[in-house]
Amino acid sequence: MTRKTHHARKVILAALTASITLSVGGFGTAMAANVTSAPTEHGAAQRIATIGNGQAKNVILFIGDGMGDSEITVARDYLHGAAGKFEGLDAIGQPGQLNDTEAGTGQYTTYSVGDGIADKGKASITPVTDSAASGSGWATGTKTYNNAIDVDANGNPQINLLELAKAAGKATGNVTTAEIQDATPAVLASHSTLRSCYGPQGKTDGSSDNSAKNCEASQLLQNGGIGSISEQLLQTRADVTLGGGNKYFKQTAQAGSYQGKTLEQQATERGYNYITDPTQLASVTEANQDKPLIGLFSSGNMPTQYLPSEATAQNSSKDGSPTQCTTNPEWLGTSGASLSDMTDSAISLLSKNQNGSSNGYFLQVEGASIDKQDHNANACGQIGETDDLDQAIATALKKVDLSNTLIIVTADHAHTSQIVESQPAYALSTVLKSPVDGSKIVVAYGTATADAKNENGGYNGGSMSHTGTQLRIAASGPGAQRVSGLTDQTDNFFTIAKTLGLASSSQEIAALSNNANVTVSKDGDAVNAQITAFNGDASVSYSLKNSAGTTVAQSVSDSSVSGLRLNTTAATPIDLSTYLNEGESYTLTVKGLQSGVEKTISLQGPAKLASGYIPVTPSDTAQPQGKNTAGNKVISDVSTLGTKQLGRTGSTIVAVLLLMLAVGSTGGLILAWRKGTFSK
Amino acid sequence: MTRKTHHARKVILAALTASITLSVGGFGTAMAANVTSAPTEHGAAQRIATIGNGQAKNVILFIGDGMGDSEITVARDYLHGAAGKFEGLDAIGQPGQLNDTEAGTGQYTTYSVGDGIADKGKASITPVTDSAASGSGWATGTKTYNNAIDVDANGNPQINLLELAKAAGKATGNVTTAEIQDATPAVLASHSTLRSCYGPQGKTDGSSDNSAKNCEASQLLQNGGIGSISEQLLQTRADVTLGGGNKYFKQTAQAGSYQGKTLEQQATERGYNYITDPTQLASVTEANQDKPLIGLFSSGNMPTQYLPSEATAQNSSKDGSPTQCTTNPEWLGTSGASLSDMTDSAISLLSKNQNGSSNGYFLQVEGASIDKQDHNANACGQIGETDDLDQAIATALKKVDLSNTLIIVTADHAHTSQIVESQPAYALSTVLKSPVDGSKIVVAYGTATADAKNENGGYNGGSMSHTGTQLRIAASGPGAQRVSGLTDQTDNFFTIAKTLGLASSSQEIAALSNNANVTVSKDGDAVNAQITAFNGDASVSYSLKNSAGTTVAQSVSDSSVSGLRLNTTAATPIDLSTYLNEGESYTLTVKGLQSGVEKTISLQGPAKLASGYIPVTPSDTAQPQGKNTAGNKVISDVSTLGTKQLGRTGSTIVAVLLLMLAVGSTGGLILAWRKGTFSK
Repeated sequence: MTRKTHHARKVILAALTASITLSVGGFGTAMAANVTSAPTEHGAAQRIATIGNGQAKNVILFIGDGMGDSEITVARDYLHGAAGKFEGLDAIGQPGQLNDTEAGTGQYTTYSVGDGIADKGKASITPVTDSAASGSGWATGTKTYNNAIDVDANGNPQINLLELAKAAGKATGNVTTAEIQDATPAVLASHSTLRSCYGPQGKTDGSSDNSAKNCEASQLLQNGGIGSISEQLLQTRADVTLGGGNKYFKQTAQAGSYQGKTLEQQATERGYNYITDPTQLASVTEANQDKPLIGLFSSGNMPTQYLPSEATAQNSSKDGSPTQCTTNPEWLGTSGASLSDMTDSAISLLSKNQNGSSNGYFLQVEGASIDKQDHNANACGQIGETDDLDQAIATALKKVDLSNTLIIVTADHAHTSQIVESQPAYALSTVLKSPVDGSKIVVAYGTATADAKNENGGYNGGSMSHTGTQLRIAASGPGAQRVSGLTDQTDNFFTIAKTLGLASSSQEIAALSNNANVTVSKDGDAVNAQITAFNGDASVSYSLKNSAGTTVAQSVSDSSVSGLRLNTTAATPIDLSTYLNEGESYTLTVKGLQSGVEKTISLQGPAKLASGYIPVTPSDTAQPQGKNTAGNKVISDVSTLGTKQLGRTGSTIVAVLLLMLAVGSTGGLILAWRKGTFSK
Repeated sequence: MTRKTHHARKVILAALTASITLSVGGFGTAMAANVTSAPTEHGAAQRIATIGNGQAKNVILFIGDGMGDSEITVARDYLHGAAGKFEGLDAIGQPGQLNDTEAGTGQYTTYSVGDGIADKGKASITPVTDSAASGSGWATGTKTYNNAIDVDANGNPQINLLELAKAAGKATGNVTTAEIQDATPAVLASHSTLRSCYGPQGKTDGSSDNSAKNCEASQLLQNGGIGSISEQLLQTRADVTLGGGNKYFKQTAQAGSYQGKTLEQQATERGYNYITDPTQLASVTEANQDKPLIGLFSSGNMPTQYLPSEATAQNSSKDGSPTQCTTNPEWLGTSGASLSDMTDSAISLLSKNQNGSSNGYFLQVEGASIDKQDHNANACGQIGETDDLDQAIATALKKVDLSNTLIIVTADHAHTSQIVESQPAYALSTVLKSPVDGSKIVVAYGTATADAKNENGGYNGGSMSHTGTQLRIAASGPGAQRVSGLTDQTDNFFTIAKTLGLASSSQEIAALSNNANVTVSKDGDAVNAQITAFNGDASVSYSLKNSAGTTVAQSVSDSSVSGLRLNTTAATPIDLSTYLNEGESYTLTVKGLQSGVEKTISLQGPAKLASGYIPVTPSDTAQPQGKNTAGNKVISDVSTLGTKQLGRTGSTIVAVLLLMLAVGSTGGLILAWRKGTFSK
């Protein structure tokens, strides 16, 4: 069966012109070659570039965090027997098993670039990724450094699949068993140079503020930044957001419109249905942009399905009496919030969300604690979480129509656990007995020390290591063949974007800003500038010049964050009034930093006031409004003289962008935007 | 793109009716379930049963021994950079890259059953396989115990792909970098209850005979057995056999026609072109059943491409100065016998072999020392061997026509090496610097101890462990889609058999014996029985009865080898003369132990001699020939009274079978056969 549909294929391996000069026969001859740089541009790490033409209305992406082939096999061997199979996990990608739906399975590479935040911008290869860089890779199509959330190797923000799906009118969902601020869900909700910037008070429960440790200072609202991951999540406004981590929503905003209020309060004030009781999930009947759902059912990560197993150094008595896994009474699956329950709700709500408009949805579902329990050398923990993910996939398979829905199952990186022949001498290991086939399964953890357990069930010597091995990816539904063969993690962005018909190339994404616009309106004393439809940009810069061409206000020019401009998510519109002198004319130029699109609007400062005119209160809208005295500028009038587009033109994008302004920490002025509808 | 060609699919998971009873919410509730038994029947472990209908003239199977996804990634990261790709390994299975050839990639499971030879027949699951059980799985379609070479869990022989390909008139080849007696090549050349039964003097260089340690005694020729792996290899008579291990061919046959001669001599006498000089390989111009090629280019395993790297416990100074791999001057790639060179020769010779008859070929190529160097915690070693395999694949891709040739690339089991974030505390590790992208690659070996190196470059504490994780399988060419999704190692047998049009189900294999036949002819004093075309059987039993119905000779009846009858490979035809009394009539019944087919032939003992007749020499062919005295029977005449078929009838099978007879160690008489043409 020759596959005829895959034409126009091109392998993009930018900057990979390496040649190995290998001298054979010479004792001790080392290989020499020109060292290539890492592919850091958007799409540059793709391996397949384009394949097939399958189009789907909906895409559900299942991520098993840390779920390498070894973790899959450990769980299958225990839960279903080595000869058995998972109901969901093994059905996805299995040719012909799902009503002859298109299916694909393959492997993908997961390396990251640079060496973390300290080495930002270094275009070197890092063989082992973390969940942040990997998530950024599959969510944005751009390789980045470990610790990065949807910013590239230089810190420039990269638009993610959820943002693009929203821009295309899709409903969106983001589900995890982790804290919702954890790397995998964060890459669909935020852009952050540090993955630990969970809330306005950092990665804390809000009882103390050590945010300086967890966030780059310039990212915080009070410093003119774009805000923490939790605050950005509220701005991104997915229709459905489910997981753990509600303690970070007890933190208090440090600046902006909601300063002094908790994020819980902010969520409610912004129209969210914010719930924390898992038993309420089943009764939620709608989740959309008018009333998005946030359900955070645990303080931190959600409890695992199984109680931890103990991993020990070699011990023949253990070897002789293999153990079995026991259910964790704290598991929320008994309260209606297993990963399967959350997936079930999310699919129901996102399907309703469409209200007959048939725009479809993009949903991500993460089984997060496969990774976390692998770090802890907890075999039962990781097995139960793999089961939870499998059940979520099985639930999705029962609910969706695979003729219009693509389901992808993969992982973000591989992990330590290995099924070995017998208990190793030094490595930690656990011997399990499968309740299905009775086999003795020796699970070894060899990448960290065997010190005493710490309070979290991990080991003080350091948690087990991620590994750099290529991963299984499997898909069923339209476009599934795109995952076949060897791909890279960044290909996943393109697979999903192309299947949903979203913009995916840098050019296509840039074109989303073709209908960008800038308007200025007066609201009381404020002169509010609004930027809309810079959909192809993750950040913008601006400058405000007077008629003499002198810049009176502009974005921060900081080379360390070139192109990023991580700025305020303050809820107020941008007020230019401070900078407008009476009788003067100005031009405000806004530039999309990724698209290069520029929009300029001319505006007029306040009219000259008659001498001795008595100031009026802001609520008085009569003209002119006040007296111009030094240090006490009061706006009387602003005339919009018209908009001039300096950049490209193009198709209509309907997403609403919000313009925000704040005084940056360097003393300059910063103009930035966040996509998504904002409700005060 | 819905795949419409995959109909009639059926998942066979025999005996897998497991159900998990999982009590949730109860603290400490262990899972309880009926424990299922392992799928030990031929084909019972298949996951896909049948898929697609691709047919190919030729199949090349590449096995990277121990080449899990981790080993693939380690080698790719080092040799080509994490963003790079293998020329051969990553091209196979890549959709659309090879002239839109059919392509497939997937994962497969590798578990074995029972617990080794000591536990033969126990139908339990063993999560981690060795190369013997895995090789038996992919070569015969039957799960078996670790240590088994093409016998099932009960020790019954299972017909392998090379035997089936020969039966179908295909040319055959078997290539490895290991000793040719090593498990992977052995599963295409022999049936053995112990993988270590390398030669008539066991796993030794022949200077001493400790065969009792390495072989089950009943398997040895002198005990009426089928003989060692090397002796069976000569009987199997593949057209091309290339690898290492010539020291075992210096051993001396302990029984049979070649008793007292070395296997080298035996090979030459049996018409083989036996070479050991790697520089001669390129000049070999033919290899076929008249003059098959055996090239064994090293005493033991072939030298690796790279010199060993050192693996150490955590050492910060090592961490700071990563090393690179250096070429091994002993590598035979400089003498014309790299794995690529051997693959090149094999394909050329097997293609010529067809002489225009277009019957095609089946070729197996193993990169064996990926596994062996992984056992040794030798990162450079395993990387170089992966490169060698990749180059062999690339060579094959240049030589074959993928419109009529299926290429499959997979492994037999996964292994220990892991790419980790940093050097672990206790596990051994090696830090490499990729000459391509400059990345620092930390390769950890955590499943054995860090004791001092032994003489073989391994560690005295025990070699690193195989792992039980599922493996990558990839294919390009007709039938390639059969490897997509999740399959089992045993599916590989069916993929290849179906693609080549070979018999694959037990029924189809049994039917190969439908044209079995037994004839008896006289050659001097000998009365030679010939059994032909029991192609569906790996063993036969017989009984010789006189006219009174009394059994005068029969197979050994030993329940410990029920159905196996591992018997002689003695080169002489079976001589029944000893059992035939003058003037009596007999029936000889031969039964195929797998097919159930029985063939009976009637024959007549010598004519009565006239009293006082003077005996003549055996060269005198006049009738009658001699005097019948007690203890000195001399045959005068034998009449064949006709053949009666008791079993089924069926299609014509052309393979020539050879009949052999020997006195079994228990005092009984054994009749057995080996497939393949025999040349004295």
